[in-house]
Amino acid sequence: MSSPDKVARRKEKLERVAKVFGPGKVIPAARTVEFLELILSPGDRVVHEGDNQKQGDFLAEKLAQVDPKKVNGLKLAVSCIGLPEHLDLFENGIAEVVDFAYAGPQGGRLAELVGKGTVKIGAVHTYVELYARYFAELRPDVACLVAIDADAQGNLYTGSNTEETPALVEATAFGGGIVVVQANELTDSLRRVDIPGEWVDFVIESPKPFHLEALFTKDPALLDETRILMAMMAMKAIYQKYLPKVLNHGVGFNTAAIELLLPTYGEELGLKGKACTHWALNPHPTMIPAIESGFVEAIACIGGEVGMEDYVASKPDIFPLGRDGSLRSNRFYGQMAGHFADMFVGATLQIDPFGNSSTVTADRLAGFGGAPNFGAENRARRHLSEAFLRAGAEAHAGDYMPQGRKLVVQMVETFQGANKPTFVERLEAWDAMKTAGFEVPPVMIYGDDVSHIVTEEGVANLLLCRTMEEREQAVRGVAGFTPVGLKRDHAMVASLRDRGVIQRAEDLGIRKSDVSRDRLAARNIHDLVRWSGGLYNPPSRFRNW
Amino acid sequence: MSSPDKVARRKEKLERVAKVFGPGKVIPAARTVEFLELILSPGDRVVHEGDNQKQGDFLAEKLAQVDPKKVNGLKLAVSCIGLPEHLDLFENGIAEVVDFAYAGPQGGRLAELVGKGTVKIGAVHTYVELYARYFAELRPDVACLVAIDADAQGNLYTGSNTEETPALVEATAFGGGIVVVQANELTDSLRRVDIPGEWVDFVIESPKPFHLEALFTKDPALLDETRILMAMMAMKAIYQKYLPKVLNHGVGFNTAAIELLLPTYGEELGLKGKACTHWALNPHPTMIPAIESGFVEAIACIGGEVGMEDYVASKPDIFPLGRDGSLRSNRFYGQMAGHFADMFVGATLQIDPFGNSSTVTADRLAGFGGAPNFGAENRARRHLSEAFLRAGAEAHAGDYMPQGRKLVVQMVETFQGANKPTFVERLEAWDAMKTAGFEVPPVMIYGDDVSHIVTEEGVANLLLCRTMEEREQAVRGVAGFTPVGLKRDHAMVASLRDRGVIQRAEDLGIRKSDVSRDRLAARNIHDLVRWSGGLYNPPSRFRNW
Repeated sequence: MSSPDKVARRKEKLERVAKVFGPGKVIPAARTVEFLELILSPGDRVVHEGDNQKQGDFLAEKLAQVDPKKVNGLKLAVSCIGLPEHLDLFENGIAEVVDFAYAGPQGGRLAELVGKGTVKIGAVHTYVELYARYFAELRPDVACLVAIDADAQGNLYTGSNTEETPALVEATAFGGGIVVVQANELTDSLRRVDIPGEWVDFVIESPKPFHLEALFTKDPALLDETRILMAMMAMKAIYQKYLPKVLNHGVGFNTAAIELLLPTYGEELGLKGKACTHWALNPHPTMIPAIESGFVEAIACIGGEVGMEDYVASKPDIFPLGRDGSLRSNRFYGQMAGHFADMFVGATLQIDPFGNSSTVTADRLAGFGGAPNFGAENRARRHLSEAFLRAGAEAHAGDYMPQGRKLVVQMVETFQGANKPTFVERLEAWDAMKTAGFEVPPVMIYGDDVSHIVTEEGVANLLLCRTMEEREQAVRGVAGFTPVGLKRDHAMVASLRDRGVIQRAEDLGIRKSDVSRDRLAARNIHDLVRWSGGLYNPPSRFRNW
Repeated sequence: MSSPDKVARRKEKLERVAKVFGPGKVIPAARTVEFLELILSPGDRVVHEGDNQKQGDFLAEKLAQVDPKKVNGLKLAVSCIGLPEHLDLFENGIAEVVDFAYAGPQGGRLAELVGKGTVKIGAVHTYVELYARYFAELRPDVACLVAIDADAQGNLYTGSNTEETPALVEATAFGGGIVVVQANELTDSLRRVDIPGEWVDFVIESPKPFHLEALFTKDPALLDETRILMAMMAMKAIYQKYLPKVLNHGVGFNTAAIELLLPTYGEELGLKGKACTHWALNPHPTMIPAIESGFVEAIACIGGEVGMEDYVASKPDIFPLGRDGSLRSNRFYGQMAGHFADMFVGATLQIDPFGNSSTVTADRLAGFGGAPNFGAENRARRHLSEAFLRAGAEAHAGDYMPQGRKLVVQMVETFQGANKPTFVERLEAWDAMKTAGFEVPPVMIYGDDVSHIVTEEGVANLLLCRTMEEREQAVRGVAGFTPVGLKRDHAMVASLRDRGVIQRAEDLGIRKSDVSRDRLAARNIHDLVRWSGGLYNPPSRFRNW
């Protein structure tokens, strides 16, 4: 018979806190370390809120200051290892294991600490996978979360950056754990309730607002003609052909180019109203012209974006807004809207000759974020759409049972920089596997799941490949002057081109002279502000006028 | 530029209601039809709460009584078409299209009405797919939801049967729609807040408690030796071999047999602590002996189960409980915990020779519920486990890139009844496709995703099949005396058996004499009550002592 251990531990911790701090949920910021030492036991699983946008930086800083003699052996779980303090926890002897989805900024140091044995990795996840496990094997003992505003009863306003708070608070509050929240402000009158106070045990007013990354702001001024060419090829070969209605774009410049070409080239291609009507997406500033041009019916948001608050609030039909008029961006739901979408378009750091890709390299355990969820073939989808059926007809041609198929597009330039090819014979993920002690390489998107690869050399349609050899030559055939591209079988690549498996710009009727920055609906951030009617308020580092 | 149409429509509707009913959120039950006519416009998308357990029966009844001259052309969305009123809406000319996941009780009538053209089907979904689409293409204009208790501010207690309420209310409240809730009781003091009042527009105290189906209660007295044999084969060939730690069981008797064999045969096989520790599951009464025997660490609940309330409340370490001590069963999260599990074990009505299965037959559009989500290979999973790696090593043997694999097990008797074979040469889903006007057959689980089929004749491991011909013979080789089974190639089946692709009871060392009801940890409902220490309180129709 199971004993209520967790509940007993929780009760004991709450009593310890009450004895020192008295009743009530509000903890003074200056005493946060002392407080954390009361609610943390050695070996606890601690979920720390931090994704690729918002970061619970105050609680991370204080967590790294607890006495390792009192608090140690913690199992840390955090979506994005984005702060140095996350790794300080390991160097200070406070935490032992980490489960995560993404480690962008700290990926290099993480690889180093894993190599030294200081950090042990539980697993690298995609966001929803990590959230789902919080309800099963990874139930949190303590969650350190983030809000914009809180009241003394624990009610939270998470607003534009709601993101992962609802999933984390629910797994913890209903899993017998303790919920602690850093809020930018304690107030008596919340503008709305995103999380009921009953689910929250403690709130702390942080000395400064939580860190927020303007991750989805891409300056159109940085889009060169190579990116515009790739975008035009993708739009002609994929968007116009399959007409995906529901889609997700990754964070990069390549998809930003597509967004800015929708009102011009997309209009010419007849996409308006027929494709790209519903999105799973952060409020990308580069989407403003497409929204203003009437391309977009609705956007399911995965997070917010700095500076987009007023613009978003002006589009209640498009963005998910609360009764107060501000965005709520529930990451779990937004991720799932994208999971069930017709198409994902993203980028990666390395692709091998079979189309497997990874952002995990030997010296950077960067992780995956949302890509495996958005960019995996979705075998659970049952609703049909034009894009799903067209892709399925290609992928399952000749099969006994007809099926639909998700479009999973990787858009990459053949080189990341001088001497840094994107296409490699062997992913460095194989080395990372050894470093981290994994049993299989940490692949972000499997070649089996990719439908198209777009480079400046052309578009490869992997759905039409019938053998691994064909797939390999289709990949090599768009890999340009990388070693992978140079090793192509010229006869086979020519035959794939004849069959339309590989399409070059000229095959798509796109001439060099067609490719111009003049086609961009906005050529700089200032243009985006103008399109927004002055409602878009870009962060100062993006302002140069 | 998009105009705030939806917001304007919502505002207009709310003003109409205020004019007639005055301020406040409480609507008298007796005036529900009049109220619904004020908040519904022709063509609105109406989400009605109803899954395979809880049903918003009062609101469904009233909805079917609105005047079709005022309210018509509605787009209905409901997880489970479980009430006659759902289809009355179509016969009465109020609704035109339905999106759904499951139509168990009404499947026959639905097929008839679709055939006549009275009902048009948007799509058949799996639960999370339908929920995800509510945030993108299927944003609700009005949601008719269900709660146990509500207060006048709209705060809701959904408790043990929280199920789909959080997903539906969030999609609607933050999507510019109107949220209406039928509650069993209006009270000033909720035992806890599951949904913040701000998200709810109107509450109505229903004259009687909402309908709740005891769907997951399986009487052990009905388990015969065939089922026990199948369960033992599955446990030896699959559970002991792969050691799945996180798993989901379907609703049927076959998996109930496994649950009741865990404390006996499972203990003999050494499963305790090594397998079946974490579950995505409703609180199945047949799980009580395994829980009491220490097999289970945690269960992520997809819903509640009638009569299990007190028992569940006594296990705070295992079940997700609120601070009030009662269950919260968020279906979206529970479904996702199962999606990322090591194994799914379920049943179906028909299987074809390639392992494709469906519960949709020519005369019953039953739909899928959670099966496609639980029972699809999950291409987005990145965390590793013993079971995932072992299955992956078989499925991807010889592949360039090693990968894990989900276990997807179909357990079926070869016949559903006299002259009703489970194994069929051609799924009736092909006929249903024509009736409903779908482009591809409504398959519940694709053969490509199934790892094992278990029948009374043996276990077929489809992961080890290298060609479609091998897969076909593996399926025929366990299909018994059905026409599909009789058409087997005896030499090939013998060879598959030599290779261990097909395993019979004797190959697994299970003798006829081993198979006995005496092995069941509980042989009737009364035994389950005893195991629970009297806390399990079965519905009266299951009581015979």
